[in-house]
Amino acid sequence: MKEFELIKVLTSGLPTGRKVIAGSGDDCAVIDLGLREDFLLFKTDAIVEGVHFTADTPAKKIGRKAMARCLSDIAAMAGRPEAALITLGLPKDYSVERIKSIYQGLTEMANRFQTAIVGGETTANPSAMMISVSLVGTVAKSKCIRRKGSRVDDAIFVSGELGGSLEGHHLDFTPRIEEAHWLAENFDVHAMIDLSDGLASDLNHLLEPDNLGAELLKTAIPASRAAKLRAKKGNAGKLPLIAALTDGEDYELLFTVASKDAVPLLDGWKQRFPDTRLSCIGKIIGKPGIHLRDKDKSHRITLHGYEHFS
Amino acid sequence: MKEFELIKVLTSGLPTGRKVIAGSGDDCAVIDLGLREDFLLFKTDAIVEGVHFTADTPAKKIGRKAMARCLSDIAAMAGRPEAALITLGLPKDYSVERIKSIYQGLTEMANRFQTAIVGGETTANPSAMMISVSLVGTVAKSKCIRRKGSRVDDAIFVSGELGGSLEGHHLDFTPRIEEAHWLAENFDVHAMIDLSDGLASDLNHLLEPDNLGAELLKTAIPASRAAKLRAKKGNAGKLPLIAALTDGEDYELLFTVASKDAVPLLDGWKQRFPDTRLSCIGKIIGKPGIHLRDKDKSHRITLHGYEHFS
Repeated sequence: MKEFELIKVLTSGLPTGRKVIAGSGDDCAVIDLGLREDFLLFKTDAIVEGVHFTADTPAKKIGRKAMARCLSDIAAMAGRPEAALITLGLPKDYSVERIKSIYQGLTEMANRFQTAIVGGETTANPSAMMISVSLVGTVAKSKCIRRKGSRVDDAIFVSGELGGSLEGHHLDFTPRIEEAHWLAENFDVHAMIDLSDGLASDLNHLLEPDNLGAELLKTAIPASRAAKLRAKKGNAGKLPLIAALTDGEDYELLFTVASKDAVPLLDGWKQRFPDTRLSCIGKIIGKPGIHLRDKDKSHRITLHGYEHFS
Repeated sequence: MKEFELIKVLTSGLPTGRKVIAGSGDDCAVIDLGLREDFLLFKTDAIVEGVHFTADTPAKKIGRKAMARCLSDIAAMAGRPEAALITLGLPKDYSVERIKSIYQGLTEMANRFQTAIVGGETTANPSAMMISVSLVGTVAKSKCIRRKGSRVDDAIFVSGELGGSLEGHHLDFTPRIEEAHWLAENFDVHAMIDLSDGLASDLNHLLEPDNLGAELLKTAIPASRAAKLRAKKGNAGKLPLIAALTDGEDYELLFTVASKDAVPLLDGWKQRFPDTRLSCIGKIIGKPGIHLRDKDKSHRITLHGYEHFS
């Protein structure tokens, strides 16, 4: 059973309540605790040695990544992080210096976004190091951006450049919290997600209800320099476009706005974030599936089926 | 380096903020988000196969325990649980049926205390199953009970019976949420903690500032039936008193109130919770350390030194 199938089984029929605005299935859980203007955001994210980092990864970058991944989910809802708890699963032979450096990375990233770290638990974890970050945040009720909300003809935007993240970006990225706030303050963003599993996979989450689809412009998809360099080396087997569509861990914002807002948004972004690319990569259509347009032709692609474009 | 020493190193100098009422070092973190009457409580707790349960533990009880441990920390501050997130670390050979049963245990315990489960993450965890529960709750600002606050001459109370938890109690206990609410509503509780590491260890957390100590009455300490039975078998090596002082995972409430409240509290508890024992086990004194009184003699005991009372 694949992870997403398992989660679907496990999260169906979970206890809920009248305070739960969004449970499983969005970037963060959203809870109405009775704050006058805000909802509570609630998220956990774990990284494990051998899966999300290796024994060779610099310890400070491990901590940085653990915190930044969780912050990226708060960004995806245009929220503000408030406080984090850290759970460290430690194998028997752990190095105290390495753990201290992990905490240094956690702390620096938390400080950058005014996030308090309000506690730390350690537990034995026989064979591998595991770091789980649990985060609470807040978001203005009127500015909370969900995954659901796209409409036919919406323009689809993505921040930054995609693909090749494992060459280094996955340890160095900055969560798009500032960018997300600017978007929520200045535009009516219909739906948003942060890219963690790859564009071709995560875009599906913005295509609800099921009759919505997307048409992407092949030439508009911003492949990263790392993806291009890797393709030039020739032995990695992925064209930059395929890497941009399928590589995970981009941690960029993918969102939709009404088409009339597309040009003002591009102009405003360029002024506000001149060093960060923003690309309009396509539009929401009234036909299910993700379609890739190249000049006059458009092909439907599927999560496991885009290799034939290479 | 021992776990509590490591945590002390790691949690010194963590980023904090003006909204943080209590960070590391209490049963839950306490955050002031701006709710009119309540603080936010925030807690995570992880259990790992081979440490907190075994491959033979019935799966439903594993889930039950994971949720109940976290709820017990909310109880220790007289809070109300609101919503939980689940992180499952799964080894490669996991059984879907076993995971479903774990979720059943999590769900039943959450339902019992009106706690929503607002999401679940799974991640690979090479050699052992790990379940981390992250919980947010609320507590009335005027009723939040911290670990710090005991005063000289306070009476020390403990709910239930202590010791021998690994005989079964650690999988079957009910978090003392109702009892804690009743206490906070009806009495001025000075300090409270839930017992997880054993009375002689956890009581130290209620002895702040450092000049406070405790005198316990040997005959008043309520050893559990399991601890007594185990002692009768003769080969376990612990007298019931020692088990009650040092065994972990009791998940009972340990708290202090002014001595004038002791009798009304015992009377009220007996009426409200006739099936649950409540024991006044001693008093707070103005001399550091934990002292055990037996008839006319009183000896100071230390965390690692009470075996000589056997």
